[in-house]
Amino acid sequence: MVRFGLLGCGRIGQVHARAIQASPDAKLVAVADAFDAPAQALAAGTDAEVRKAADIIEGDDIDAVLIGTPTTTHYDLIHQAARAKKAIFCEKPVDLSSERVRDCVEVVNQNGVMFLTAFNRRFDPNFANLQNRIAGGDIGDVELVTILSRDPSPPPINYIRTSGGLFRDMMIHDLDMARFILGEEPVTVFAVGSSLVDPEIGKAGDVDTAAVTLTTGSGKICQISNSRRAAYGYDQRLEVHGSKGMLRAENILENTVEMATQTGFARAPAQHFFLERYEAAYLAEITHFIDCLKNGTNPSPHIEDGLRAQILADAAAKSQETGMPVSV
Amino acid sequence: MVRFGLLGCGRIGQVHARAIQASPDAKLVAVADAFDAPAQALAAGTDAEVRKAADIIEGDDIDAVLIGTPTTTHYDLIHQAARAKKAIFCEKPVDLSSERVRDCVEVVNQNGVMFLTAFNRRFDPNFANLQNRIAGGDIGDVELVTILSRDPSPPPINYIRTSGGLFRDMMIHDLDMARFILGEEPVTVFAVGSSLVDPEIGKAGDVDTAAVTLTTGSGKICQISNSRRAAYGYDQRLEVHGSKGMLRAENILENTVEMATQTGFARAPAQHFFLERYEAAYLAEITHFIDCLKNGTNPSPHIEDGLRAQILADAAAKSQETGMPVSV
Amino acid sequence: MVRFGLLGCGRIGQVHARAIQASPDAKLVAVADAFDAPAQALAAGTDAEVRKAADIIEGDDIDAVLIGTPTTTHYDLIHQAARAKKAIFCEKPVDLSSERVRDCVEVVNQNGVMFLTAFNRRFDPNFANLQNRIAGGDIGDVELVTILSRDPSPPPINYIRTSGGLFRDMMIHDLDMARFILGEEPVTVFAVGSSLVDPEIGKAGDVDTAAVTLTTGSGKICQISNSRRAAYGYDQRLEVHGSKGMLRAENILENTVEMATQTGFARAPAQHFFLERYEAAYLAEITHFIDCLKNGTNPSPHIEDGLRAQILADAAAKSQETGMPVSV
Amino acid sequence: MVRFGLLGCGRIGQVHARAIQASPDAKLVAVADAFDAPAQALAAGTDAEVRKAADIIEGDDIDAVLIGTPTTTHYDLIHQAARAKKAIFCEKPVDLSSERVRDCVEVVNQNGVMFLTAFNRRFDPNFANLQNRIAGGDIGDVELVTILSRDPSPPPINYIRTSGGLFRDMMIHDLDMARFILGEEPVTVFAVGSSLVDPEIGKAGDVDTAAVTLTTGSGKICQISNSRRAAYGYDQRLEVHGSKGMLRAENILENTVEMATQTGFARAPAQHFFLERYEAAYLAEITHFIDCLKNGTNPSPHIEDGLRAQILADAAAKSQETGMPVSV
Repeated sequence: MVRFGLLGCGRIGQVHARAIQASPDAKLVAVADAFDAPAQALAAGTDAEVRKAADIIEGDDIDAVLIGTPTTTHYDLIHQAARAKKAIFCEKPVDLSSERVRDCVEVVNQNGVMFLTAFNRRFDPNFANLQNRIAGGDIGDVELVTILSRDPSPPPINYIRTSGGLFRDMMIHDLDMARFILGEEPVTVFAVGSSLVDPEIGKAGDVDTAAVTLTTGSGKICQISNSRRAAYGYDQRLEVHGSKGMLRAENILENTVEMATQTGFARAPAQHFFLERYEAAYLAEITHFIDCLKNGTNPSPHIEDGLRAQILADAAAKSQETGMPVSV
Repeated sequence: MVRFGLLGCGRIGQVHARAIQASPDAKLVAVADAFDAPAQALAAGTDAEVRKAADIIEGDDIDAVLIGTPTTTHYDLIHQAARAKKAIFCEKPVDLSSERVRDCVEVVNQNGVMFLTAFNRRFDPNFANLQNRIAGGDIGDVELVTILSRDPSPPPINYIRTSGGLFRDMMIHDLDMARFILGEEPVTVFAVGSSLVDPEIGKAGDVDTAAVTLTTGSGKICQISNSRRAAYGYDQRLEVHGSKGMLRAENILENTVEMATQTGFARAPAQHFFLERYEAAYLAEITHFIDCLKNGTNPSPHIEDGLRAQILADAAAKSQETGMPVSV
Repeated sequence: MVRFGLLGCGRIGQVHARAIQASPDAKLVAVADAFDAPAQALAAGTDAEVRKAADIIEGDDIDAVLIGTPTTTHYDLIHQAARAKKAIFCEKPVDLSSERVRDCVEVVNQNGVMFLTAFNRRFDPNFANLQNRIAGGDIGDVELVTILSRDPSPPPINYIRTSGGLFRDMMIHDLDMARFILGEEPVTVFAVGSSLVDPEIGKAGDVDTAAVTLTTGSGKICQISNSRRAAYGYDQRLEVHGSKGMLRAENILENTVEMATQTGFARAPAQHFFLERYEAAYLAEITHFIDCLKNGTNPSPHIEDGLRAQILADAAAKSQETGMPVSV
Repeated sequence: MVRFGLLGCGRIGQVHARAIQASPDAKLVAVADAFDAPAQALAAGTDAEVRKAADIIEGDDIDAVLIGTPTTTHYDLIHQAARAKKAIFCEKPVDLSSERVRDCVEVVNQNGVMFLTAFNRRFDPNFANLQNRIAGGDIGDVELVTILSRDPSPPPINYIRTSGGLFRDMMIHDLDMARFILGEEPVTVFAVGSSLVDPEIGKAGDVDTAAVTLTTGSGKICQISNSRRAAYGYDQRLEVHGSKGMLRAENILENTVEMATQTGFARAPAQHFFLERYEAAYLAEITHFIDCLKNGTNPSPHIEDGLRAQILADAAAKSQETGMPVSV
C-alpha cells in the first residue's frame, strides 16, 4: 500500500486524489494547500487529513509526495522531498527554467528517489497504444511526425502572464510527445508564432498560435502546431509516418451519435477539455507510479525527460523570438 | 467491335449510350424512341442514326439490342430481338408479371441469345468488391444480411400508379442484391409496409416504407428496409455478417470535406441519386456485357435472375397484403 | 444518502456495487449471496457487511434492494422486498414468464414501492443522446428503426439451456430499446431464427441467429437482428430513420488509433463486452435510481416496461416457433 | 468550340486529351510529340492529326495550345505560342528557374494571351469545395494550414536527377495550395529535408522527406510535409484551422467497403496515384480553361501563380540547403 501526501488541492490535485483513491494499492494519507478551504474540502471528500506541506514531506507515514502546486513552488518542494527520501510525482513543468530543472535532477539523483514527471499524455491509452506499435515496428522506421494540439479556449490573461509562454506552458506536452514518438533526440528546433486568437495575449508578450519543426540526428522530422482556441473542443491528434505505413490517433468525440439531414452527416464535438479527455490517462499515470514503487522500477517519464522537454521549449521560445533555428 | 442499337432514349437510355460510347470495343449504331425529339437529340450527340425500333432489331449491322423503353414494352421487344438472334441488354424489371417473365425466359433460351438483366448495383465497384470477398471466404459463411435502401424523394404519384408497387419497382434491386450476396435461394418472404412518407401513395394502393425478411433453406437470414424518402440523399448500404467477421459498404458522400465547429463535425450529404451514385456501375455493366459478347460467355445477372427477383417481389407484395409469410 | 442492500454478488452484482460506491449519495450497507465466498469477497472490497437475503430485505437500515440474483429467484425476492416497502432495483429479465411478471407488477403497485427494471442500454450516453434527440424532434417522425446487436461469443451451453432462449435472454434488450425509440407500442411481431453459430445451441432447442420485425399501430417499422457471435467484438448499433433525417449510434472501438499500410486503413475491434461497453451506462443507471429515491420520482424503465418487453419476447419466441406473425 | 493543339503525348498529355474529348465545347485538332509512336497512338485513339509542334502553334485552326512536354521545353514553347497569340494551357512547373518564369510572364502579358498554370489540385472538387467555404467565411479567419502530401513511391532516380528537386518538382503543388488557401502571400519560408526513403535520392543531391513552414504578413502559418513514399497509397490531405472552426479534406479510398474481424475494422488503401485521384480535377481544369476562352475571362491559376509558387519552391530549396529561413 503506497501512502500518498498531496501538495496542492486545486483542479489537478483533485484529479490525482481521485485516482489515488481508485487504486487498491494506494492510500491518500494527507493533503496540503496554501489555502485552507480547498484543503479542507478535499480532505472532507476523502479519508485524508489536512497537514502543512512540510509535515507531509517529513511524515513517517508518507511514502510518496504528489506535487500539484503552482510551478514556482516545485523547485523547493522537490528539494525537500528528495532530501526526505520520498518518492516524487511532480506535475509538469518541473520548473520554467532549465537551469533550475538541472538542479532538481541533481538533488533527485543524489538522493536516489523515484521521480515521475507527469506528462499525462504518454499514459493516454490511445497514444500509448500508438507508441507501443511504433516501438514494435508496425510501421517500420519513423520518418515524419505530425502533432496537432489545440485548446478549446485560451486561459485567463493573468494565467498567460506567468505561464512562461505558450512553448513552455502548452507546447511542452507536444515536445515531450515528440520525444516519446521519435525515439531519438531532436537536434534543431525552429518555431514561429503569432497572436491571432486574442490581441491581449500578444500584448502580454506571448503567442497563441504556433508551429514548430524538430529534426533529429538521423533526419527524422516532427511538425507540431498549437492554437489556444478550437471552436470544436479540445483537439489532440498525433500522426506518425513510417517506412512501412502510418499510425494516427484521432480525437475522441463527446458521443458516437451521427445525424444525417439535408445538410449532411453531423457528429458531436470533441471532448471538451483535458479532465474529460485524459481521465483514463490520469488513472494510468498514477497506476504506473504506484507499480514502480511496488516493484522498485524507475518511473517514466523521469525527471530527465522533464529537463529535455524544457530545453526544447526554451529553444522553441528562442527560435520564435529570433526567427532563427536553434540547435539543442 | 460490338454494334449496339438502343431502344428508348430517355434518362436511362442516355446513360447507357454514354457508356457504349466510352467503350473502345463498342459502337452505338442506331437509336429509337416512341417520340422523335429525344431520339434526334441523342443521335445528334453521338454518331448514331435514328431508326424505328423494328428496323434496329432486324438490322444486319446490329449485334446487340439495349432495351431501355417503358417496362410494358419489354415483353414484345424481347421476343422480337430473341427471334432476330440479337444479344439483349434489358433494363429491370423484365416485366411486372412473373408469368410473362417466364415467357421471356423461354424465348431467350429457345433462341440461344445472350441476355443481361440490368441490375446495375451488382456492378457497383463497392458492392462487387464486397460480394467478391464473400465469395472468397473473407468472412466465412454468410449468416445475416442487412440491406438499407432509401430514395432521396418519392417519384411522381403518376409513376407510382403504374410502377407495380414498391416491392416490384424499388425493392426488386435489393431482392436481387440479397440473392447476389446470400449465395442461396430464399425460401420464405415476410413483408410489412406503410404509407408514412406521403398519404397519396397510400391512396394509390402502394406503400412508401417497407421491410422484408428473407430466409434460405440453410437458415441464412436477410433483412431489407426501404423508404421512398431520405433527407440526406440516396441511401444505399449493405452489410453482411458472417462466421468470421462482417463486411459492409457505406454510402458515398458528395465530397470528402469535413467541417468542425461548435456544434461538432459535419460532412456532406450522400450522393443525391442513382445517375451519380451508380455512374461507375453503369460503365462496368455495359463493359461486362460487351466482354461476354466478345468472349462468348454468359452474362450475369441473366434473365433467370430477373425472374427470381420478380418472384421474390411478388411474394413480398403478397405477404404485405395478407400479413402472412409466403413460401417461394 | 440511499442505503443499499445487494442481493447477488456475481459479475453484475459487483458492477452495481462499484457504481453504488462511486455515488456520493449512496452507501452499500450489506450484501448477500447463495454462496459465502463471493459475498465475503465483495464485502471485503467495500465497507458492506455480509447478511442473509431475508435480513437485508427486512433491515431497518436498508432503503433499497438491488436484485442481481439468478432470474428464477427474482419473483420471490420482489414479493418480499415490495411487502417490506423497499425500493427495488431489479436486473432484467424480471422473470421468464410474463404471467409471473404480471404478479410482480401487482405486488409492486399494491405496495407502492419504487421499481427500476435494469435495462442498462437506455442509460448508455450514446443511446440516451439519440433517444433524447428523437424526442426533441430532430429527425421528425420516426419511421424505420434498425437495431443490430451481436454478442462477441455465445454463452456456455448450460447457460443457454436455462436462459429462456435467445428472444427472452438476449433480444429482450433490443425489444426494450425498440419501445424506447419507437415511442409507440408494437402491435405485431414476426421472428425468424436459426442455429448457425453452434449446432449445440440448436440441439438445446434454441437459436443463435435471429431477426425480428415489429410494427406499431401507426405503421412504424422496427427491424432487429441478433447473433450470439461477432468476430470483431460486442456489436451494439442503433439507427433511426425519420421524416426529417436519420440518427445512428455506432460501436465504440477499443481505441482511436488507425494504422495505414499496403492493405489499407485498420482500426481496433469494438469494445469486447458489456462490462466495458456499458460501464458509463451502469453508473448512469444507478444514479437515476438514486435520484428518483431522493426526489420521490418514478424510475424509468419501470416494472411495466419489464412486462412489455417480456410480452414482446414471448411473442417473438412464439412467432419463430410457428413461422407466423403474432399480434400483441 | 475551342480547337486544341496538344504538345506532348505522354501520360499527362493523354489525360488532357481525354478531358478535351469529353468536353462538348472543345475539339482536339492536332497532337505533337518528340517521338512518333506516342503521337501516332494518341492520334489513332482520337480524331486528331499528328503535326509538328511548330505547325500546331502556328496553325490557323488552333485556338489553344496545351503544353504537356518536358519542363525544359516549356520556355520556348510558351514564347512561340504567346507570339502566335494562342491561348496557353501549361503543365506545372512553368520552368525550374524563377528567372525564366519571369520571362514567360512577360511574353504572356505582352502578347495578352490567356494562360493557365495547370495546378490540378485547385480543381479537385474536394479541395475546391473547401477553399470555397473558406472564402465564404465558414470558419472565419484562416490561422493554421496543414498540408500532408505523400506519393505512393518515389519516381525513378533518373527522373529525380533532372526534376529540380523535391521542392520544385513535388512540393510546388502544396506551395500553390498554401497560397490558394491562405489568401495572402507567404513572407518567410523555412524548410528541412532528409533522404530517408532511398539513399540513392540523397546521393543524387535531393531529399525525399521534407517539411516546410510558411508565414504570412499577418501571422498566418502553414505547415507542409512531403514524403516520396506512402505504403497506403497517394496521401493528399489538407486541413485549415480558422477562428470559427476547422475544415479538412480526407483521402479518397479505393472503395467504401469495411471489413470487421478479430483484428478490428479494415478499409481499403487510398486511391493509388494522381491519374485516378485527380481524374475529376483534370476534367474540371480543362473545363475551366475552355469556359475562360468562351467567356473571355482570365484563367486561374494564372502564370503569375506559377511564378509565385516557383519563388516559394526556390526559397524552400535554399532554406533546406542553408538551414536558415528565407524571406520572399
